Amino acid sequence: MNVTFLGLGNMGNPMARHLLAAGHHLTVFNRTPDRTVALASAGASVAATLSEAVQNAEVVITMLADDRAVLEVTENFIPNMKAGAIHACMSTISPDCSRRLMELHHARGQVYIAAPVFGRPEAAEARKLWVLAAGSARHIETCRPLFEAMGRALTILGDDPARANIVKISGNFLIAATIEALGEAFALVKKSGVEPGAFLEIINGALFNSPLYANYGGIIANQRFDPPGFKLKLGFKDARLVLDAARNAEVPMPLASLIGDNFLSALATGKADLDWSALAQIASERAGF
Amino acid sequence: MNVTFLGLGNMGNPMARHLLAAGHHLTVFNRTPDRTVALASAGASVAATLSEAVQNAEVVITMLADDRAVLEVTENFIPNMKAGAIHACMSTISPDCSRRLMELHHARGQVYIAAPVFGRPEAAEARKLWVLAAGSARHIETCRPLFEAMGRALTILGDDPARANIVKISGNFLIAATIEALGEAFALVKKSGVEPGAFLEIINGALFNSPLYANYGGIIANQRFDPPGFKLKLGFKDARLVLDAARNAEVPMPLASLIGDNFLSALATGKADLDWSALAQIASERAGF
Amino acid sequence: MNVTFLGLGNMGNPMARHLLAAGHHLTVFNRTPDRTVALASAGASVAATLSEAVQNAEVVITMLADDRAVLEVTENFIPNMKAGAIHACMSTISPDCSRRLMELHHARGQVYIAAPVFGRPEAAEARKLWVLAAGSARHIETCRPLFEAMGRALTILGDDPARANIVKISGNFLIAATIEALGEAFALVKKSGVEPGAFLEIINGALFNSPLYANYGGIIANQRFDPPGFKLKLGFKDARLVLDAARNAEVPMPLASLIGDNFLSALATGKADLDWSALAQIASERAGF
Amino acid sequence: MNVTFLGLGNMGNPMARHLLAAGHHLTVFNRTPDRTVALASAGASVAATLSEAVQNAEVVITMLADDRAVLEVTENFIPNMKAGAIHACMSTISPDCSRRLMELHHARGQVYIAAPVFGRPEAAEARKLWVLAAGSARHIETCRPLFEAMGRALTILGDDPARANIVKISGNFLIAATIEALGEAFALVKKSGVEPGAFLEIINGALFNSPLYANYGGIIANQRFDPPGFKLKLGFKDARLVLDAARNAEVPMPLASLIGDNFLSALATGKADLDWSALAQIASERAGF
Repeated sequence: MNVTFLGLGNMGNPMARHLLAAGHHLTVFNRTPDRTVALASAGASVAATLSEAVQNAEVVITMLADDRAVLEVTENFIPNMKAGAIHACMSTISPDCSRRLMELHHARGQVYIAAPVFGRPEAAEARKLWVLAAGSARHIETCRPLFEAMGRALTILGDDPARANIVKISGNFLIAATIEALGEAFALVKKSGVEPGAFLEIINGALFNSPLYANYGGIIANQRFDPPGFKLKLGFKDARLVLDAARNAEVPMPLASLIGDNFLSALATGKADLDWSALAQIASERAGF
Repeated sequence: MNVTFLGLGNMGNPMARHLLAAGHHLTVFNRTPDRTVALASAGASVAATLSEAVQNAEVVITMLADDRAVLEVTENFIPNMKAGAIHACMSTISPDCSRRLMELHHARGQVYIAAPVFGRPEAAEARKLWVLAAGSARHIETCRPLFEAMGRALTILGDDPARANIVKISGNFLIAATIEALGEAFALVKKSGVEPGAFLEIINGALFNSPLYANYGGIIANQRFDPPGFKLKLGFKDARLVLDAARNAEVPMPLASLIGDNFLSALATGKADLDWSALAQIASERAGF
Repeated sequence: MNVTFLGLGNMGNPMARHLLAAGHHLTVFNRTPDRTVALASAGASVAATLSEAVQNAEVVITMLADDRAVLEVTENFIPNMKAGAIHACMSTISPDCSRRLMELHHARGQVYIAAPVFGRPEAAEARKLWVLAAGSARHIETCRPLFEAMGRALTILGDDPARANIVKISGNFLIAATIEALGEAFALVKKSGVEPGAFLEIINGALFNSPLYANYGGIIANQRFDPPGFKLKLGFKDARLVLDAARNAEVPMPLASLIGDNFLSALATGKADLDWSALAQIASERAGF
Repeated sequence: MNVTFLGLGNMGNPMARHLLAAGHHLTVFNRTPDRTVALASAGASVAATLSEAVQNAEVVITMLADDRAVLEVTENFIPNMKAGAIHACMSTISPDCSRRLMELHHARGQVYIAAPVFGRPEAAEARKLWVLAAGSARHIETCRPLFEAMGRALTILGDDPARANIVKISGNFLIAATIEALGEAFALVKKSGVEPGAFLEIINGALFNSPLYANYGGIIANQRFDPPGFKLKLGFKDARLVLDAARNAEVPMPLASLIGDNFLSALATGKADLDWSALAQIASERAGF
């Protein structure tokens, strides 16, 4: 398949590589040309401009930072995309932005599907992303070989692209909730003389049995927030997405609000570039540690 | 060992049976004599009075409802316990109550250890309880064969009995936090047209991989709160314990407070006898479902 | 002075009348021409188009619904405004929108000042608005006679127009906080058998001595939310403004978040068109009333 | 009337003086005899023991620190009180404690009424307390001349003494809510460059017109928390009373919970002995100031 990949950051780069390895004709473009060098030597075509990059694509995949970046780039390439071509947006964006993109493409006879992923750069490297796709069923099937080349699982969520985005940001909310809960519990047990790491082993062994609890719990217990796996300021971006979605859907989410306020507190006290699990430090600091 | 077991409810009963099966000399007493019949036919001695029940015990185990019940019963039997005998309190009680019990026993040359457990009646039946013991190390070792007869794991948390209680109630707080988080996330995805069960499968498959998420998530997704596995009014009791411990330790726990308020809301709207995961219904109702 | 007034709703209409009464040359335009009839017979010129309305204005006053309305109308009339003319925006809008408007006008050699007001339609009728002005000091002085014709007080808040908007929305937040606090306190005293009206008299007599507490407290105590003085859905708009400003300024405002979630709950349960003090019903309903 | 006054702190002392000035036969007792010297020279009888202090009293007034102090002292003097004598408890105590006291006195043919007050030591000095009385109507009338000698207003709240305590602690909750709201609003306006004092003048002039807002707002705007008018650790005591009452009445009070957590944060960061309005510092610190 002729595939164009836009957004060659630490997620997009390995994803693009897996597409090449699976035998697709890959075209890339990046404002920072350095990022295309390795892909070019692995067989990707490097386009000189964004317009050139998309003109022959059957599928354009975008893996960009946020709503604004996706909208800006899409508005730039959309006039050059073929009618009938598919834009699969794999970024974590708002449901509203997804609906807007669908309208933009629809107006030109193009197809939009949302396909955000669960998984960090390590998972992207290891082809272990979990892809959540929503939009036209037929066109998701067209993209299936691409998604399967990049990930370990594909879940299809129906016709409305926004649903995939809602599921993605709700998943991130659940992780943030785990961080907040661990932060508060650790503050309590620490003040009572129990070592957080010991507490974590017990509650994970006896109750959760979850690698995610082991992972985040371990980072928080050891206060090992630097270097960051996922920066707090990006975690805040996702927290905002869920708060905005809750607002639009008229769903009160007091725990999401609590997390949002703790993110603001973390930003205001200089934690923007730490790992997002440093959110748990707020509970610790408020307890006087 | 000569062991006396007080509190033959749906937790205590199977626990007592496992002690018998392990070959201990078990004495039981219950205000409702019916509960002792099966144990008697399995070999337990049934005492006629509380005083008689404890007088020859090397270890007295209590598995009673709450602080008040444990204090009342203990005040009644303490004059008849031998000096040097051990009271192992396995109920979920407050750290303060644990400290008070330690003082009461200490004043009479007796020993108090806290040994609360993670696990529901099914786990008690299956000898899968996780025992958290704190208090005198030597006397915990004395009790070790008893704990091992009843559970799959024993964690020792140091000299201060209150620590075991803090760990127990903090663990319950983490489960309640999971319920609250799932309740909010389900409300959001449902209003967006995503089926909660499908959402749960995704986030547990992609993120948590936790049987506890599968279990509670499943109950909440299917709104199957009756019959209850653990009644909401008892869940509220535990929520109060963690809030009181946080207050005493000067640890702000806003998520625990949020959960406490949602429990009150659940009680005030007639959910006391549903499963405690009906806490998640508050988010759903507030979203207009 | 040549003044153009745009936005002749239940606030703008009496404000425009006061300007006429003070002897200014007033031009009006409204998409719903009916609204201009009374003003025309009182001496206002009615423009046929928005462009015509602003072309000779020394000062253009806008009193429109929200950010979107102000931006849309301003983008339409800005090409026809004279260089050096002043746009005084008296709506309750976001600080960000205010900054954006300042840039738009600045780029054309025009002047923007923010001048939101405290006061409802009755206060507008009675010339009792409190005007908060921010922007170029010299141009605020130019507008002073206009503001004084419409209100009882004018406070000047410096060069940055956004500050006036921050003060306005923070004031509204404080009222919403009062409503929330009264709602919770009333729920508690009611469940204890104390009549809310009696409670209100005591706490206002003994503590607050505030007409605002008497007013909102009276509405809430009597649950007299219909007809609305200020609709709940508009109150929610203001709650969103303060939450967004808090987010942009990195200021955690947990009480504002709590209010925001209760507004969502009120919207989701059909209270959009009641008085915004029906926010207090959430506490009442959650207590089982 | 023969009146005994117990609890001669900075509230009780001026209250006792007003009773003397109104011509009542006053008996006092204090563990710290120094506190009785001035009252003795103004005409009060000083009893040598608590028992002696109450034995001839028609009315015993207590003005003590908290539930525990009131219960302890009452249990000591109750055997020596005459049948038919009245205990008027004017402290800020819990509704539960009030009910317990009523039972204790009832069992001995004595009368208990709750009569907490709004007002600080300055108000006590100036005879400006506001008395909230609840209990037997007839016996409140007996005490009326005493209450009128000490305060400017008396509100009667019915037969159940606990109601007076609920009203008192709910009033204190409303003040704490004002402090929290001002703290958050000040943090937002400050970060936007508006001086808190200026903001306060506007919102109090335009909206609240309340001396209480002027007073607390002024303290917070100027961060003048030392010396304290009312210590934060005592404010926390009252916050706990309202949270406990809400819990017992099954009334979710999320704003009270938020305040409770901020009090814990204030205690954990060394603010126990500042004025209780230092609660507002939490919002300021969390915003990075």
